[in-house]
Amino acid sequence: MKKNFFCSEELTMKKNGKIEDEFSLIAQMSGGFSSYQKGVLVPNGDDAAIYKPQNGKAQIVCVDTMVEDIHFKRETMEPFHIGYKSVAVNISDIAAMGGEPLYFLVSLVVSPDWTSDELMEMYQGMKSLADHLSIDLLGGDTVSTKKNLVVSVTAIGQVDEKVRLLRSNAQPGDILFVTGELGDAAAGLDYLLNHKKDQVEHEFATLVRAHQLPTPHVQQGGILAEFAITDQIALNDVSDGLASEAHEIATSSEVKIVIDKDKLPLSLALISYAKECKKDPYHWVFNGGEDFVLIGTLPKHLVSSVREKFEQEGLSLYEIGWIEEGKGEVILLEDGKRLPLHKQGYNHFG
Amino acid sequence: MKKNFFCSEELTMKKNGKIEDEFSLIAQMSGGFSSYQKGVLVPNGDDAAIYKPQNGKAQIVCVDTMVEDIHFKRETMEPFHIGYKSVAVNISDIAAMGGEPLYFLVSLVVSPDWTSDELMEMYQGMKSLADHLSIDLLGGDTVSTKKNLVVSVTAIGQVDEKVRLLRSNAQPGDILFVTGELGDAAAGLDYLLNHKKDQVEHEFATLVRAHQLPTPHVQQGGILAEFAITDQIALNDVSDGLASEAHEIATSSEVKIVIDKDKLPLSLALISYAKECKKDPYHWVFNGGEDFVLIGTLPKHLVSSVREKFEQEGLSLYEIGWIEEGKGEVILLEDGKRLPLHKQGYNHFG
Repeated sequence: MKKNFFCSEELTMKKNGKIEDEFSLIAQMSGGFSSYQKGVLVPNGDDAAIYKPQNGKAQIVCVDTMVEDIHFKRETMEPFHIGYKSVAVNISDIAAMGGEPLYFLVSLVVSPDWTSDELMEMYQGMKSLADHLSIDLLGGDTVSTKKNLVVSVTAIGQVDEKVRLLRSNAQPGDILFVTGELGDAAAGLDYLLNHKKDQVEHEFATLVRAHQLPTPHVQQGGILAEFAITDQIALNDVSDGLASEAHEIATSSEVKIVIDKDKLPLSLALISYAKECKKDPYHWVFNGGEDFVLIGTLPKHLVSSVREKFEQEGLSLYEIGWIEEGKGEVILLEDGKRLPLHKQGYNHFG
Repeated sequence: MKKNFFCSEELTMKKNGKIEDEFSLIAQMSGGFSSYQKGVLVPNGDDAAIYKPQNGKAQIVCVDTMVEDIHFKRETMEPFHIGYKSVAVNISDIAAMGGEPLYFLVSLVVSPDWTSDELMEMYQGMKSLADHLSIDLLGGDTVSTKKNLVVSVTAIGQVDEKVRLLRSNAQPGDILFVTGELGDAAAGLDYLLNHKKDQVEHEFATLVRAHQLPTPHVQQGGILAEFAITDQIALNDVSDGLASEAHEIATSSEVKIVIDKDKLPLSLALISYAKECKKDPYHWVFNGGEDFVLIGTLPKHLVSSVREKFEQEGLSLYEIGWIEEGKGEVILLEDGKRLPLHKQGYNHFG
């Protein structure tokens, strides 16, 4: 059936002349992606693509979908960002399994209010991350809808077949860690919803970037995968806020997670922006979401070697709490008091 | 990020009480799929799924998307059919590469006019084909949109790494074949658009079934793959009508395809329905689409052995033309005359 990235007999021709030549658009899009992976036997362009997996490697697959006005608003995301982020959120899931990303496939459902220039920008956003990660586009489908663009990405990666970085792996005695600062993406969204997006203050640019162009923690996942060949490590990516992700690990592992509020890594930009707009930065930390850093647990005897490996690579590892016996609870330690931290996912624009 | 088939913090709660309990819906959906594939190391339910590929097998991947009111209308497709067909059209692409289907992932974008019962029926449709083919659901994402349901499926299969059933493989001297009757699906759609769908006449039930519950030709693709280890065979699935698919092969292979109109396999139901409604059945054959049979070319020396293998399995193989030297043309031989057959894809409801 498929012929090309953004193969689409069905993409509605724009009567307002915005998208005049579908085939020229498809050709521009499909021509732009590079080939990095040597395992590709039949590239994107026939009914399906074919690749040869590496010996001893298991395949990791996941799909994630972004819908206009549900998961993103055009007032805070340029088309480039939407394309980039649609791939990034899936790669983040590969990273959370310790995987090396290899391939991705795109389903793009376009509504009539998008121009061909905007679609090209979106594709440039996908391409920029694909180039950065050396991953190949293996399939695409572009169709039309009446309202609200939908972009759905399937990512494929590989990992040593002995690695299981499951959220059910946490054990009492483990430490709890995150691989980056929390809350920046949600604060960046807040900033853009309350300020002009073409005049972002230098001080808050990192927050806006965290919202628009999140970096999946592939390298961090890869290091943890090496240790996971022999040891039990839990891992999640922080897509729905710290509280929600901690609850997922606590529930799956049937343990109690204690988070020490004083140890949570908050960026200077986040603290500064929270002060300026008189908001509680911890709201973004706990319930914000879309940080796409990794959260996980480590047996104590591993901590110094994992930390050393992270430091060698110039990466951050923040110890933010520990695991106790329990039944799927998350506790926040604040001023010496233990309070239950309730699960409250990121609400998007719902 | 993902937790479950139809994991979805984002699925909008229905205020009219139609979908009252999102988590109960998710649990019902995710609990229903069976596990057939022994290669699954981490099933659907963590950030991503992990599977171990078989030695010597290449992996086939493709994605395809169906949008309400663009690719299907609820007046001709029950939710069960939509679910079934969303998987079938992707498996058809795996079949067109000669592959054995193994896994699929689903992205479902739900608009507020769908009830939880209808979503459950849709999932039952997916499950019925998954059970029939012994394939495992490896990932899912359910999110909301404002209008028009979108279902996007990624299929994964495997094939001997030496097999290349490419549309660019046709060579002058080859014969042209299809693996099933043509035009039924489009005639079935026509029937449903012009008749009451709950009172389908027995005589035309096969047409309606071809539209609603197409059978991907996996077994046929598998037989052709065995011959393709040593020989050059072109293959496509007929998703956009015979004319369009023949043009794809002719263009990719840089050959001339001659189709003998007298040899085209038309079902009795199609001929009978065309007569009843005074329409030209060949319109559906050439431009109808969605038959999901396979079209391909075979070197002459293979024809009798391929035919024998098909007959042993009770499968059909129709020789409908041949390949000549040329430059991407398709010719229709009718009453001894040669006429150019123009490419005209299936227009859906555009």
